[in-house]
Amino acid sequence: MSEAHKGPAVRWAEIIAVGSELLVPPRLDTNSLFITDRLNDLGIEIRAKTVVGDRRDDLESTLRAALARTKLVVLCGGLGPTDDDLTRDAVAAVLGRRLHEDADVLRQIRRRFEARGARMPEINRRQALVPDGAEVVANAMGTAPGLWIAHGDCLILLLPGPPSELKPMLELVVADRLGPLAGDARLHRRAVFICGLTESEVDEIASPVYAPWLDDADPIHTTVLTSPGQVELHLSTRDTSAARAADRLAAAVSALTAVFGADVFATDGRSLEETLGGLLRARGWRIGVAESCTGGLLSSRLTDIPGSSDYVVANVVCYSNASKTAWLGVPADLLAAHGAVSEAVALALADGIRARAEAELGIGVTGIAGPSGGSDAKPVGTVAIAATTRTARLARTYRFPFSRVRVKQFAAQMALDLARRVLLEVGAGRAFVVRQAGGGAR
Amino acid sequence: MSEAHKGPAVRWAEIIAVGSELLVPPRLDTNSLFITDRLNDLGIEIRAKTVVGDRRDDLESTLRAALARTKLVVLCGGLGPTDDDLTRDAVAAVLGRRLHEDADVLRQIRRRFEARGARMPEINRRQALVPDGAEVVANAMGTAPGLWIAHGDCLILLLPGPPSELKPMLELVVADRLGPLAGDARLHRRAVFICGLTESEVDEIASPVYAPWLDDADPIHTTVLTSPGQVELHLSTRDTSAARAADRLAAAVSALTAVFGADVFATDGRSLEETLGGLLRARGWRIGVAESCTGGLLSSRLTDIPGSSDYVVANVVCYSNASKTAWLGVPADLLAAHGAVSEAVALALADGIRARAEAELGIGVTGIAGPSGGSDAKPVGTVAIAATTRTARLARTYRFPFSRVRVKQFAAQMALDLARRVLLEVGAGRAFVVRQAGGGAR
Repeated sequence: MSEAHKGPAVRWAEIIAVGSELLVPPRLDTNSLFITDRLNDLGIEIRAKTVVGDRRDDLESTLRAALARTKLVVLCGGLGPTDDDLTRDAVAAVLGRRLHEDADVLRQIRRRFEARGARMPEINRRQALVPDGAEVVANAMGTAPGLWIAHGDCLILLLPGPPSELKPMLELVVADRLGPLAGDARLHRRAVFICGLTESEVDEIASPVYAPWLDDADPIHTTVLTSPGQVELHLSTRDTSAARAADRLAAAVSALTAVFGADVFATDGRSLEETLGGLLRARGWRIGVAESCTGGLLSSRLTDIPGSSDYVVANVVCYSNASKTAWLGVPADLLAAHGAVSEAVALALADGIRARAEAELGIGVTGIAGPSGGSDAKPVGTVAIAATTRTARLARTYRFPFSRVRVKQFAAQMALDLARRVLLEVGAGRAFVVRQAGGGAR
Repeated sequence: MSEAHKGPAVRWAEIIAVGSELLVPPRLDTNSLFITDRLNDLGIEIRAKTVVGDRRDDLESTLRAALARTKLVVLCGGLGPTDDDLTRDAVAAVLGRRLHEDADVLRQIRRRFEARGARMPEINRRQALVPDGAEVVANAMGTAPGLWIAHGDCLILLLPGPPSELKPMLELVVADRLGPLAGDARLHRRAVFICGLTESEVDEIASPVYAPWLDDADPIHTTVLTSPGQVELHLSTRDTSAARAADRLAAAVSALTAVFGADVFATDGRSLEETLGGLLRARGWRIGVAESCTGGLLSSRLTDIPGSSDYVVANVVCYSNASKTAWLGVPADLLAAHGAVSEAVALALADGIRARAEAELGIGVTGIAGPSGGSDAKPVGTVAIAATTRTARLARTYRFPFSRVRVKQFAAQMALDLARRVLLEVGAGRAFVVRQAGGGAR
């Protein structure tokens, strides 16, 4: 812990990402997500975050504005060896400190080059410049050292921009310096992941549950995040006791699970594909997927999970009608009678892949991803999905009035969810279930 | 064009995104990407962008700092009806203007509710508050109007946070108000997309080409962006003449294409899967994919392209050895002799899917995505990829020392690229090419 810092526990922070390249689309500053996570763990919340280009004046005024608001400012980037790496200079100027060349830092930079059989270019000498009174944070992955500066009751942390360098350095700083300063109240979090309801449906059901939590002496805050076909309720609370926070959050999660029932697929942060994989593994079952409009996305999500080769055997992307018949045994007259995009064909695809991949669970997906191929009866975004086992069958038709890629995302999500629900039915002993019902964009 | 604005052409802008929810991971402000794109089109560049929470003081100090740096500030979010929607109040306070209730705006908000058969909640009255002298920007998609304020030589634009509301409103403002103010010099852009080289290899080859452009009277700036297996050189230049800029950029693109040759896959912004689709379509060919470790990702990328059903027939994800034999005819003794992860098996997979899907081009991918399953001879991240036609064959082995999901991303990218290169060989009349060479992580 720095001797120079005499202030109270750090409660708020700001993040400044430095680099003109971060202002050019499609680039986004993502370091701040990692930094926010780590600081939130310590109970430190973020007041603002800024991306600023490589202009000395802008960098200085940004830092001044941040220091006027918060006692902890984390800057990342602009510590390289070139002329447009200005973070060191700007910070020294704002704090009214001189820069000096640090012999130890210079030696380490030299050594890094020599270890690769190279000589340090003279330009890298800049990276050994350190504001008077700053402490050096070692960088095991690159040449730019981090800097930690206690200035009056303010703390300024400078980290290099590459995530592979920044992340381990921040972990060090969190353990050695920020942890002791952060006070006893930490931020504790849980999340409830839901599939099968829209954001507004979730909020209508959940808000009577979570609204009263805000009036507690130790309030629990709820943030709603969404991705295609998924609504997440993120709960957070400050507490000096990890055990008490865990109990309070567990009670909150239970209250939400009670109102949402089977629409909740995870309360431990697991993705839908990981949840489904866990259910398959628990039964020792294998899965086969026959997908048309999702084009491989459903299979790709299943195989994102380490160890999925234990339950994924073979999946087929059957884009043409002929391949649905030849590869999966969907009768040509079924295709003719119902059309390729129908629950009857989705069920036949699920049964076909289940038989041919020798799997216990089959999924069939068939739809119109667009932008062309729709009709009045079956507009673009119409998707039929089925999941079958030897004893249980579910099929649903959805309308996703979105772009091609989003139709794929929604359909893959709802297919994973339908498979999860079939496994729940089977697990509850509800065999020979046949349910078919239209669904909306959720 | 606003009468009150008397300053010179607008050259710089800042963006402020308002909302505490934007400071909670994994949320990112992505509105700023769209705003940046539109302003860049007008030759207006972004000096800084800030995300600030719903605190009146923070919002005011952020706006003050931005106005000290630039003449145009775009704020998005915080225009809703609730107590924590503070953007209107903060802007009025910083500019020293009073808020008044605008009768027209109030009428429009009421009408929006009535159109849905609802009465306007009293709380929404807040959204009709307008700083004195501000002009209202109509919002066709929601209740929060935008505001345009000319203040001395500064311009402040307030837009609502939801992208579906913000985007059309910004388009209107760009056409009606910002376009005329932006001056004649616009920013013009081109990009060169490369596959098969690392970022540092690209930079080593490209920098002697692009470095001199910076010394031109009208410099062309080059930004390097990367994604798994792809390096993009983004060129931009300011010019008062669109035709002259197009000529200068075309010459720059040609100079880069000349040094990179077939490693360049697009100079028109098209993705690798779209480029490959174009080559297939040009020949009237179809493609089949047999993928193991990429698990469907390769097929999913191919089918992200509208119209891909013209050339995608059927793809197989063959995770198990048994499925490689049963579904694609890979001889069991070939698997035993070379192992599943080998160029011999990748070639057999490509030939197998080509025959069974009745396609002219086949791709086979087999590898170890990890985190387990590696050996000393074939560590995690080893991937063999093959692309074959009736007359041409290419196979390569790669090492991608990354996480499971990144191995999938790199492998899918290199497989698309290998298929592209086979089509180029065929197109150039170089038949019966057999090339096998190890490759690194690129």
